[in-house]
Amino acid sequence: MLADLPQILERAAPAHCYAVITDSNVEELYGRDVVAAFDGKERCAMFSFPAGESNKRRKTWGVLTDQLLDAGFGRDTVIVALGGGVTGDMAGFVAATFLRGVPYVQVPTSLLAMIDSSIGGKTGVDTSRGKNLVGSFHQPAVVVIDGNTLETLPDRHIRAGTAEAIKHGAIADAGYLDWIVSHRDAVRDCDVDVLLELVRWSIEIKSRIVAEDETEQGRRAILNFGHTVGHGLEALSNFDLLHGEAVAIGMIAESELGISAQITEKSVPETLRQAIEAMGLPTRSPLNTPPESLIEAMQQDKKNRLGKLRFTLLDRIGEVREGPDGEWTHNLSESAIFETFSHIM
Amino acid sequence: MLADLPQILERAAPAHCYAVITDSNVEELYGRDVVAAFDGKERCAMFSFPAGESNKRRKTWGVLTDQLLDAGFGRDTVIVALGGGVTGDMAGFVAATFLRGVPYVQVPTSLLAMIDSSIGGKTGVDTSRGKNLVGSFHQPAVVVIDGNTLETLPDRHIRAGTAEAIKHGAIADAGYLDWIVSHRDAVRDCDVDVLLELVRWSIEIKSRIVAEDETEQGRRAILNFGHTVGHGLEALSNFDLLHGEAVAIGMIAESELGISAQITEKSVPETLRQAIEAMGLPTRSPLNTPPESLIEAMQQDKKNRLGKLRFTLLDRIGEVREGPDGEWTHNLSESAIFETFSHIM
Repeated sequence: MLADLPQILERAAPAHCYAVITDSNVEELYGRDVVAAFDGKERCAMFSFPAGESNKRRKTWGVLTDQLLDAGFGRDTVIVALGGGVTGDMAGFVAATFLRGVPYVQVPTSLLAMIDSSIGGKTGVDTSRGKNLVGSFHQPAVVVIDGNTLETLPDRHIRAGTAEAIKHGAIADAGYLDWIVSHRDAVRDCDVDVLLELVRWSIEIKSRIVAEDETEQGRRAILNFGHTVGHGLEALSNFDLLHGEAVAIGMIAESELGISAQITEKSVPETLRQAIEAMGLPTRSPLNTPPESLIEAMQQDKKNRLGKLRFTLLDRIGEVREGPDGEWTHNLSESAIFETFSHIM
Repeated sequence: MLADLPQILERAAPAHCYAVITDSNVEELYGRDVVAAFDGKERCAMFSFPAGESNKRRKTWGVLTDQLLDAGFGRDTVIVALGGGVTGDMAGFVAATFLRGVPYVQVPTSLLAMIDSSIGGKTGVDTSRGKNLVGSFHQPAVVVIDGNTLETLPDRHIRAGTAEAIKHGAIADAGYLDWIVSHRDAVRDCDVDVLLELVRWSIEIKSRIVAEDETEQGRRAILNFGHTVGHGLEALSNFDLLHGEAVAIGMIAESELGISAQITEKSVPETLRQAIEAMGLPTRSPLNTPPESLIEAMQQDKKNRLGKLRFTLLDRIGEVREGPDGEWTHNLSESAIFETFSHIM
C-alpha cells in the first residue's frame, strides 16, 4: 500500500504538492521510501519532528507550519500524516490551520492510530494544562492503511492498541468483544490478517458513531468510555502508561462506577477484565496514587472543566446508557467517585 | 446595543460562560462596561492583549488560550470578540481551536471590522512570513454592531474603513459606489446614521458573496480586489500604511493591471480615483519603492505562493471578469506587472 500511495492519492486527494509530516522514528522506517515513491510524479517533501507525546505541542506545530511556508508550500497542498496517533493529531492540526486549512490524508502506522485516532477528524495538540486542549475537527480526505507497518510495531504497542478495540466492543457490539477474545493468540502474535480484520471491524463501529455526530455535540461522547479515568491516569504517570493501557484500567474503573450508580450490569467489569487480560493489558493502576489525586487529575481534562466529572456508563456489554438529560455522559458526584475508587484502586 | 449584549447573546448564542477577548485600547473604552453588563447574569470575564497588528501572532493566541484554561472556561463557553479587525481575527482563531472549537460572536467596534473582517468567518494570525498564514474558517454565531462605537474611532480609521466599502461597490454594485461618493461629507463627518447605512449595504454585498463560497474555493476570491498589491504595500510599509489605505492604492494599481491585460474598461481607474479621493484616502503609494520590491513583497502573500501572482480584475465598475480557467483570479506575468508598475508607482 505504501508503495502505491502516489497513485492512491492522485485519485483520492489530488494536489500539486504533497507534504509528508512524520516523526523521527517513522521517518527512518517508512518516510524516506514514501517520499521516494513520489519521485518524478509530484512535488513532495518530508517534514519530521522528534517522536513522542511530549512533542505534541503548539511549538512543534508552529515549527512545522513555518517549514512548510519556507519550502514554498501553498494552498494547493495535501498533507500526508504518516505515523502513529501523535503524528496524526499534529499533522491534522497543521493541515486544519495552514493558510486557513488544506486537505490531509491519514496514513496510520500504529494499531491505535489505525483503529482509533486516524478516524473521525479530531486533530490537536497538548498544552501544559492537559491533552488535546487546542485543536480542530478536520476530516481527512482519505485514510490509507498498510497492515505490514504493524510488523515493526513493538508488542507493547500492539497490546495497547487493542484497548480501543475492546472499547468498541464494549460500547457497541458484544459479538465483536467475543471475537477479539477468541482471537487472542493471533492478535498477540501480530498475525496481520487477523489484525486487519480487527481494524476493519473497529473502523466500522467508530465511523458509524462519528458520522452521526461529527463535532461531539452528543452521542459521539460514548467513544470516551474509559477515557475520563484513562486520561487522568495517563497524566499522573507522566505518560509512562501508554494511552491504551490507561484506557484499559479506565474501562474497568468506569464500569465499577456504573454499578455504584445502579446503571451498569454487575457482570460487566468481570467480562471486561477477562478481555483486557487476554490482550495482556493491565486491569489495575500500577501507580499507587490516592483517589483524591486521580479525581484532581480527571478534573484537568477538557470534558470535565468547571469541576464536573462526566462519564460514559454502560448498560451492559454492547450498550451505553443515555443520560437523564438527553446527554450521553453522566455526572457523578465526587463523593460517589471517591467511594468507588477507594475500593478498587 | 452594547448595554443589551447579555440579552442579545442569551437568545443568539446561549452559554454558561462568556469570555470577552479584546485589546488594550478597547478594554478601556468598552470592555469594562460590557463585562459589567453581564454582572449577576452569567459567568463572564475579560481577556485582553496589547493592541496592534504586530501582536496578532501565535504567541498571543497561545497566551489567551492558556488564560481561558486557567480561568476554568470549558466547552460551554462563547467567546465575544470585542474590537477591530485584529481582535476579531485573533479571538475568532482562539474560538476555532479552543477545546477543538467553541462558538463565538463578533462585536466589531471599527468601521473596517463592521463592514469587512467581522463578516465571513475568516480567523487567523500572522507569522513572520506574512499576514494570516495560520488560521481557520469559523463562522460567528452572530455579529452585533453598535454604531455609537464609531464615535471614538480616529478619523484616519474611519477613512481607511471606507476603502472596503468602495471595493464592495467596485466588484458588485456601481450604484453603491455612486451613493458613497454622494454621501462623502456625511461619511467623513462620521454621521452615524449614514455610516450605518453604509455598513448595512456593505454587509449585504459581502455576505451574499461569502454565502456562495464560504471557504474561498472560487468566487469569494473577488473580495480580494486591491488586496494583492495592498498586502504587498502594507508589508513594505511595516504596517505604517493602514490596511484600507493600502487597499485604496491597490485597487487603482490592479485596475491599471486590468487595462494592460485588456480586460478592464479604461475609465475604471479614474472612477475609483475620484471615489478614493472623496473619502480622503491615498491614490498613490507614498513609499517610493521600486517595482521589483513590491513584486517580491506580493509573492510572500499566501494566495501567491510558488511565485505565481494572481489578481481580481474588473470588467467595469460593479462587475468582475471570470478567469479563462473558470477561476475568479487572473495570473499575470511578472514582466507585464513590472511594466505597469513602472508607469504608475
